[in-house]
Amino acid sequence: MRLLVVGGVAAGLSAASRARRLDPHAEITVLEKGQRISYGACGLPYLIEGQVRDIGELTVYTPEFFEKERDIRVRTGAEVTALHPARREAVLSSGERLGYDALVWAAGARPRERFDDPRLFSLHTDVDARRLQEALAGGKPKSAAVVGGGYIGLEMAGALRARGLEVELYDRGPHLLHWNETWLTEALTARLEEYRVRVHLNSPVVSPASLPHDVVLTAVGLSPNAEIPAAAGAETGRSGALLVNEFCETSLAGVYAAGDCCETMHAVTRAPAWVPLGTTANKMGRVAGANAAGGRERFPGIAGTAVVRIAGLGIATTGLSASLATGAGFDAVAARITKREKPPYFRGRRATVELVADRRTARLLGGCVTGDIDPTGRINVIATALQAQLTAHQFAQLDLAYAPPYATVMDPLLVAAQQLIKLLD
Amino acid sequence: MRLLVVGGVAAGLSAASRARRLDPHAEITVLEKGQRISYGACGLPYLIEGQVRDIGELTVYTPEFFEKERDIRVRTGAEVTALHPARREAVLSSGERLGYDALVWAAGARPRERFDDPRLFSLHTDVDARRLQEALAGGKPKSAAVVGGGYIGLEMAGALRARGLEVELYDRGPHLLHWNETWLTEALTARLEEYRVRVHLNSPVVSPASLPHDVVLTAVGLSPNAEIPAAAGAETGRSGALLVNEFCETSLAGVYAAGDCCETMHAVTRAPAWVPLGTTANKMGRVAGANAAGGRERFPGIAGTAVVRIAGLGIATTGLSASLATGAGFDAVAARITKREKPPYFRGRRATVELVADRRTARLLGGCVTGDIDPTGRINVIATALQAQLTAHQFAQLDLAYAPPYATVMDPLLVAAQQLIKLLD
Repeated sequence: MRLLVVGGVAAGLSAASRARRLDPHAEITVLEKGQRISYGACGLPYLIEGQVRDIGELTVYTPEFFEKERDIRVRTGAEVTALHPARREAVLSSGERLGYDALVWAAGARPRERFDDPRLFSLHTDVDARRLQEALAGGKPKSAAVVGGGYIGLEMAGALRARGLEVELYDRGPHLLHWNETWLTEALTARLEEYRVRVHLNSPVVSPASLPHDVVLTAVGLSPNAEIPAAAGAETGRSGALLVNEFCETSLAGVYAAGDCCETMHAVTRAPAWVPLGTTANKMGRVAGANAAGGRERFPGIAGTAVVRIAGLGIATTGLSASLATGAGFDAVAARITKREKPPYFRGRRATVELVADRRTARLLGGCVTGDIDPTGRINVIATALQAQLTAHQFAQLDLAYAPPYATVMDPLLVAAQQLIKLLD
Repeated sequence: MRLLVVGGVAAGLSAASRARRLDPHAEITVLEKGQRISYGACGLPYLIEGQVRDIGELTVYTPEFFEKERDIRVRTGAEVTALHPARREAVLSSGERLGYDALVWAAGARPRERFDDPRLFSLHTDVDARRLQEALAGGKPKSAAVVGGGYIGLEMAGALRARGLEVELYDRGPHLLHWNETWLTEALTARLEEYRVRVHLNSPVVSPASLPHDVVLTAVGLSPNAEIPAAAGAETGRSGALLVNEFCETSLAGVYAAGDCCETMHAVTRAPAWVPLGTTANKMGRVAGANAAGGRERFPGIAGTAVVRIAGLGIATTGLSASLATGAGFDAVAARITKREKPPYFRGRRATVELVADRRTARLLGGCVTGDIDPTGRINVIATALQAQLTAHQFAQLDLAYAPPYATVMDPLLVAAQQLIKLLD
């Protein structure tokens, strides 16, 4: 069995490793168009900030590791430019043709906009990061503009500010992050302004090169690297990303897909959604790899859970906000509370929890947790509840842990749920 | 409507407050046998340790607050000594008789053993705490024995050690805590010994007064304060605690019960269980109060989720360990992994996660999270999964949050679940 895996970061390497576990004899080759595999791209902002000293710290595995430990061939600098699904062949930019019995397309995504200008930067790959590092070290820039108020834009605004630059952040729309709620945008803007990042909302930047800053970082979203399978006939969704079924199969026989190049089922809307995140890429990659190697595993989909820390403020979301839920056809109702997460004598900070439910069914649809806290544990509880289809009433009765060093007897999650129930009943 | 609530700590005050919300006109009286209401008893070890300066910091509400803000009468020093359910009367130790239309029994629990000896202490009430504080301040004791290796015993061993005493801990059985697993007992014992608490397992202390230490704290478990309703005919379970249905109704008409004096449904075994904890007391109290005031709410039961910090080590459990699950008739299989919870460049510590499932159904039965970490968020995810009846396979696909400051791309919870699946498949 010849398995080709296209892409050597999260989804691709998970797929290759999992395939090897299921089939000790398969001939497995990973094709990575870049020079580096297996780096934690989510750590790149912290490389710029200085928390990570060297990109090597972000590299989990080397090609040698895969060759020696897992008998997986890794070819870097190998870019696939076409697929011939009828012949089960992939074509490299060199013209070389590689046959396969199964192929996992895990080519990720790319910044929607890239510019060829020495003052303009993206932060998507290790190459991008190195270029920006060099610019920061060499030119002693004093001011930076960040275009785009999503995760990367916000993390980078924080990172550049931490490096001492004057930073201005531009977003075309009225909101920061994708939760699309005014209260959250206001809280985050206030924190950024305290941190002396100037925030410009409703401010489309038509021509980033015209901004007067020494450094301009654009982070206005991603495009899925789906064109090559699509040209070979693979179906794509509304986002342009590949459509896959729960077995991570594309519409091309023998071609699986995983990660940022795919749509997957959203646990709340039960419709395909494109939410490119490393966690999903890893889990989908495992399933795609297992099935490419003859298994029959399911990927049930995602809740869109994400967390970010910006200027010390933790923000986590999962599922749908009220406005997103309304847009998806739910009769959405939201409750928001702020409460200490630990007793004062353990220096408890205030956590804000927002929960969203459907008025008709009382089912939870989403949640947001924020504050000068680590919001991860609480957002994961909400994500679990979303994936288990719990109602607000069931959520309010969850048996959560309490001890004074860690929590309060009635957790903010439960208080928010009680508030939500009042609006539902 | 006359509502009597017996007990003025967690369950009782939750019941009274919730009843008031549902019935603005009810005549509500809380009877508390002690002198202080609404204190966070779980904070008492931290009062002894010194983290909490004064017991006032543990007091959430005063009787005056309840009278003024909620129109709830609070009588301290009022001990109920009998119930006459046919006449719907409660009798106080003074002989006074109080009629009721509905009564919520929320009298809590008490230490199973108490001793009348100046060197012997319990830590259950504010009075116990004050007595121990005075002994520590006055007599300059140098050595302490703690009898009992449950939560309170362990927290107190830590607290007394933090106060500078030489501490020895005795437990009659082979395990510390109730998870009943050797690996956890060994990890905890190692930590306590590092902290210079000497641990003696399999060491029943028949006569605490015979121990040579300056201070002897006994914490060998609780007994439910259920005798008075039981004498009036209320059914009790195997533990001696009151049996209630999902509406928190006892077998006596008009008498509800909540908190440490009751059994409640265990989410995993689906059988009544007695797990006295403040979180349950608060939630059950709300349901009992709502129903006593004419509502019809359900309390679905508990997973037995608990967390504790001992000598810096966080330990959290929920549901059943493998040995407990086997004892309950499951074909239990457990997987345990240790993994960093954050990237090294954010000083991630190692978290150990144990997950238990039923081999026949793959349903999760329990989990334990421990390490030099806050285990609360992760144990709450497992608790949510238990209450939602998720399988190990569903759990392994949960969409959990990731960002370098807070988490790793493949959370220890998911890695443990993958390990568990290997044992199940």
